[in-house]
Amino acid sequence: MTAPFVTLNEFRATLEAATGPDMESIAGAKDRNGQLTKPPGALGRLEELAIWYASWRDTDRPSIKSPQIIVFAGNHGVCAQGVSAFPSEVTAQMVSNFEHGGAAINQLAKTFGATLNVHALELEMPTQDFTTAPAMSQAEVVIALMAGWNAVDPKADLLVTGEMGIGNTTSAAAVAAAVLGGSAAEWTGRGTGVDDDGLARKTDVVARGLALHDASDPLEALRCLGGRELAAMAGAIGAARHFRIPVILDGFICCAAAAALEKAVSGSLDHTVAGHLSAEGAHDKLLEALGKQPILSLGLRLGEGSGGALAIGVMQAAVACHSGMATFAEAGVAAG
Amino acid sequence: MTAPFVTLNEFRATLEAATGPDMESIAGAKDRNGQLTKPPGALGRLEELAIWYASWRDTDRPSIKSPQIIVFAGNHGVCAQGVSAFPSEVTAQMVSNFEHGGAAINQLAKTFGATLNVHALELEMPTQDFTTAPAMSQAEVVIALMAGWNAVDPKADLLVTGEMGIGNTTSAAAVAAAVLGGSAAEWTGRGTGVDDDGLARKTDVVARGLALHDASDPLEALRCLGGRELAAMAGAIGAARHFRIPVILDGFICCAAAAALEKAVSGSLDHTVAGHLSAEGAHDKLLEALGKQPILSLGLRLGEGSGGALAIGVMQAAVACHSGMATFAEAGVAAG
Repeated sequence: MTAPFVTLNEFRATLEAATGPDMESIAGAKDRNGQLTKPPGALGRLEELAIWYASWRDTDRPSIKSPQIIVFAGNHGVCAQGVSAFPSEVTAQMVSNFEHGGAAINQLAKTFGATLNVHALELEMPTQDFTTAPAMSQAEVVIALMAGWNAVDPKADLLVTGEMGIGNTTSAAAVAAAVLGGSAAEWTGRGTGVDDDGLARKTDVVARGLALHDASDPLEALRCLGGRELAAMAGAIGAARHFRIPVILDGFICCAAAAALEKAVSGSLDHTVAGHLSAEGAHDKLLEALGKQPILSLGLRLGEGSGGALAIGVMQAAVACHSGMATFAEAGVAAG
Repeated sequence: MTAPFVTLNEFRATLEAATGPDMESIAGAKDRNGQLTKPPGALGRLEELAIWYASWRDTDRPSIKSPQIIVFAGNHGVCAQGVSAFPSEVTAQMVSNFEHGGAAINQLAKTFGATLNVHALELEMPTQDFTTAPAMSQAEVVIALMAGWNAVDPKADLLVTGEMGIGNTTSAAAVAAAVLGGSAAEWTGRGTGVDDDGLARKTDVVARGLALHDASDPLEALRCLGGRELAAMAGAIGAARHFRIPVILDGFICCAAAAALEKAVSGSLDHTVAGHLSAEGAHDKLLEALGKQPILSLGLRLGEGSGGALAIGVMQAAVACHSGMATFAEAGVAAG
């Protein structure tokens, strides 16, 4: 599948052309849910998740057979400002770890039967330091969006987008601030674990980035302040909408990229749920801005798509109950 | 395996004889956790869960291959007082639904690769109505505890105990109040969904049960106010401790049974975690009394072990990450 855009504006047009949930499937799934052998509402949020999932799969009795996890990796010029506890080389080292099956996301993909794909995005050519120049040119951001779009398997039935990129909580904080408003301090957190000095330095870097660029357009914010892996996640989430594949959002960085989509074209995240609440400082604020209630809250702050992947199990369970349970009539159970 | 007790006091003695976590495995697992390719603490609660799990499996690198879910079903004489929105016949109907694979717990067991066993405990002979007599005789409660103990597969490596029994949120509220203190109103909830009148009736029933029986001994509380499925869950949790099988507790009814163990012999629940926070009224209060933080909070209130089963996926993920990830040295990743 080739991405149907070659400019930022054409990408925006794909978001604008996206279709909504299937109302007939919602009605059918709600009806089915009401007949299943359980007291009304007794499966709590699983019921809502199953109906939501059905609405994007155009059936009232869906199944999850082919979840896909894609991890995009990118390097960040802004690392020159000393914003991370880890050196930039770790991005490529972790990509190698993904490829050899040694990272957390490999174990999570295996646990939940998901396909894992890893895309390293020109790691040898970091983005520009956004305190001095736009992180990416128009061509660069479009290429990253296309890489994301093209990475999605149209046959997948659930997608998690994850990332690896030393320095990318700094980029994500800058994108979130530009797209959602608020100060650098409100959006900047400790990432992989910087100390108080490091946090102050990161906050200053984000503030300088915000001051330098005209990022009033959300996709421009992604270009000037983001990174290749953020743009690729945005492209993949856009593609998933096109292919009607529900998406589980991961943590702070994934949600910052997603926020740029939502602010570019309202409703662009209707096919997504928040997999978890990350321990990264401002993720709760970001989820609130997106109106998303996280499925899990277990203090993860790893990235790689790990929190989203962990929620695959909950989605599988929700859909399995919805589509596999007997109705009161089928089971001969009195409906109360 | 035959249960090593024939009286309540002998059951208590098995709890007193239970061994604790393996300190060497904790040290080894903590050491391993510190070397894995992630920033320290980045897997949040998954790290703590994996180390806890290791401590009961006597290895610093455990795996979960054979999770077992056991659903015990019982009928309750107290249903004569009109405490449930469903008739007692539904207990047997749902057991048939479990046996034919049509219930939520069947789908959850399949989703997470768990063995599901169902034990119907003399459904045609409900317990006595606890507002007029002890729910069970000494012999009856011991037989139920033994049924629970004997249902546990010694080769299982993770256990979820669930229940089905129309009227059993009433029994569980009475047991919780007797064992943990507090008024009937504090512990009584809506169960499968009774209205305000029903809730007032349930609360009154619980209060009358508490007034009638001397339930100062927690195992006596289980006998006089509980039910066969509650006693069986308690027996199974005791057996799991004996076999060093970690347990995921389910919702309000399971936790009320578990509370009787903890209050009978302090530390009896050290090999257990709380799978979820149920929507049943006082489950949060019960978990707080047990000092257990739930893994999930998704508004389930179904019973059947469903909330515990849903948390199997999280435990599998935690243990898979812990035991499957590469160390910094193995992966050639800079440790920051």
